[in-house]
Amino acid sequence: MGERAVKAAVLVIGDEILSGRTQDVNIAQIAHFLAPLGITLGEARVVSDDQNAIVEAVRALAARWDYVFTTGGIGPTHDDITADAIAAAFGRPIDVREDARAILEERYGASGTELTEARLRMARIPDGASLIANPVTGAPGFQLENVFVLAGVPKICRGMLEDVAHRLEGGVVTHVVSVRIENAREGDLAEALGKIAQDYPACSIGSYPWFEELAGGSFRRGVELVARGTDEAELEEVDALLRALRR
Amino acid sequence: MGERAVKAAVLVIGDEILSGRTQDVNIAQIAHFLAPLGITLGEARVVSDDQNAIVEAVRALAARWDYVFTTGGIGPTHDDITADAIAAAFGRPIDVREDARAILEERYGASGTELTEARLRMARIPDGASLIANPVTGAPGFQLENVFVLAGVPKICRGMLEDVAHRLEGGVVTHVVSVRIENAREGDLAEALGKIAQDYPACSIGSYPWFEELAGGSFRRGVELVARGTDEAELEEVDALLRALRR
Repeated sequence: MGERAVKAAVLVIGDEILSGRTQDVNIAQIAHFLAPLGITLGEARVVSDDQNAIVEAVRALAARWDYVFTTGGIGPTHDDITADAIAAAFGRPIDVREDARAILEERYGASGTELTEARLRMARIPDGASLIANPVTGAPGFQLENVFVLAGVPKICRGMLEDVAHRLEGGVVTHVVSVRIENAREGDLAEALGKIAQDYPACSIGSYPWFEELAGGSFRRGVELVARGTDEAELEEVDALLRALRR
Repeated sequence: MGERAVKAAVLVIGDEILSGRTQDVNIAQIAHFLAPLGITLGEARVVSDDQNAIVEAVRALAARWDYVFTTGGIGPTHDDITADAIAAAFGRPIDVREDARAILEERYGASGTELTEARLRMARIPDGASLIANPVTGAPGFQLENVFVLAGVPKICRGMLEDVAHRLEGGVVTHVVSVRIENAREGDLAEALGKIAQDYPACSIGSYPWFEELAGGSFRRGVELVARGTDEAELEEVDALLRALRR
């Protein structure tokens, strides 16, 4: 853990997310994985399965953030173009690499499955990249510079993160407190809340209204207040001030 | 409905999405709303509650896509900075606007709630913007040029879309067929699938593996094939070819 704020971005690659057919869960999953390492997400993007779109987004995000995590597009089918796009983004040659081929040969050999040309696509790794182990299905991800290329299937993505954590230089950990206020509207709290935010500029304080419909057509409402900060003592003071807003 | 491909982007504004605390559902919700109008999402971004980040993303997306939909950051609290950021992005003055104030006065008056200074923040609307009705809580969104500013609470976001549809010039509608193949792996289908994709370049064909764990530790697997295109006759041919991959 360092003393520096370390920030990352997620780049979700896939037409199926943009069409709404598949609900992305990897942004939240990666955020939860990184938080205890002292790394927070600064941005996320979703782009389609289009080489230019991927190249442009990877370059922009890799230049701006400490780390970039991509998800999706590393399978064996024609629409899996992430590895080639990452190679293009960094101007690296790409071909089937022997270390990746060996992993696939062992995995498919064990199940008596032929390593077809299509499956060999999954061994295409840009020059200079290091492999990321895939404990679920074998086919590896890879790291190239500050970009980590992960699978889109959430379970495989999660499995790959286990081989990513030790490569990350963490930052100062952000702590969170959360206070639930029942029977209040944001407008009731806004003035007092704004004052707390002003008095504690190092804390980031968010306000999130919620509604719950009850049987019979009535409903409950309230506001969830969430404060984040790196100074635990200060955050405890803010927590007490937020709790005092309960009336 | 036009004959042109019309593309939009979603800009999700909110630290709570980037922290993983709240799961975004608005990207998928907006995609589903736009599809029957012949409008597809070309890109989505998530940025934090930071004016510079919002301004930069809005400018980039508004210049590139036909329409931009922002969600989040239009409530009454100090962290609600979307309206001011949109005004800054387009170089427009912003202040409390009388038409928006009138809506809030009527709404809060009916419930005997004081229209505090904090609540008046929700009447801050950039010059030249047109209001978007909020059938859920009253506080309006707005449209400025090709940018539609919506609430982040999914139900309110959905309600506001009803006052957006009539402002959109739709494009050619994309149709979808989806074929579920049981007991197959992507690698088994990749070659045949690649050939179909090559033969029908106007269709976008995606391949999505799925796994289901069954009781007792066994599992089922398969692949979902999804084809999209604007020519229904062509798509019917592709559908038949995809179904023929079932063995």
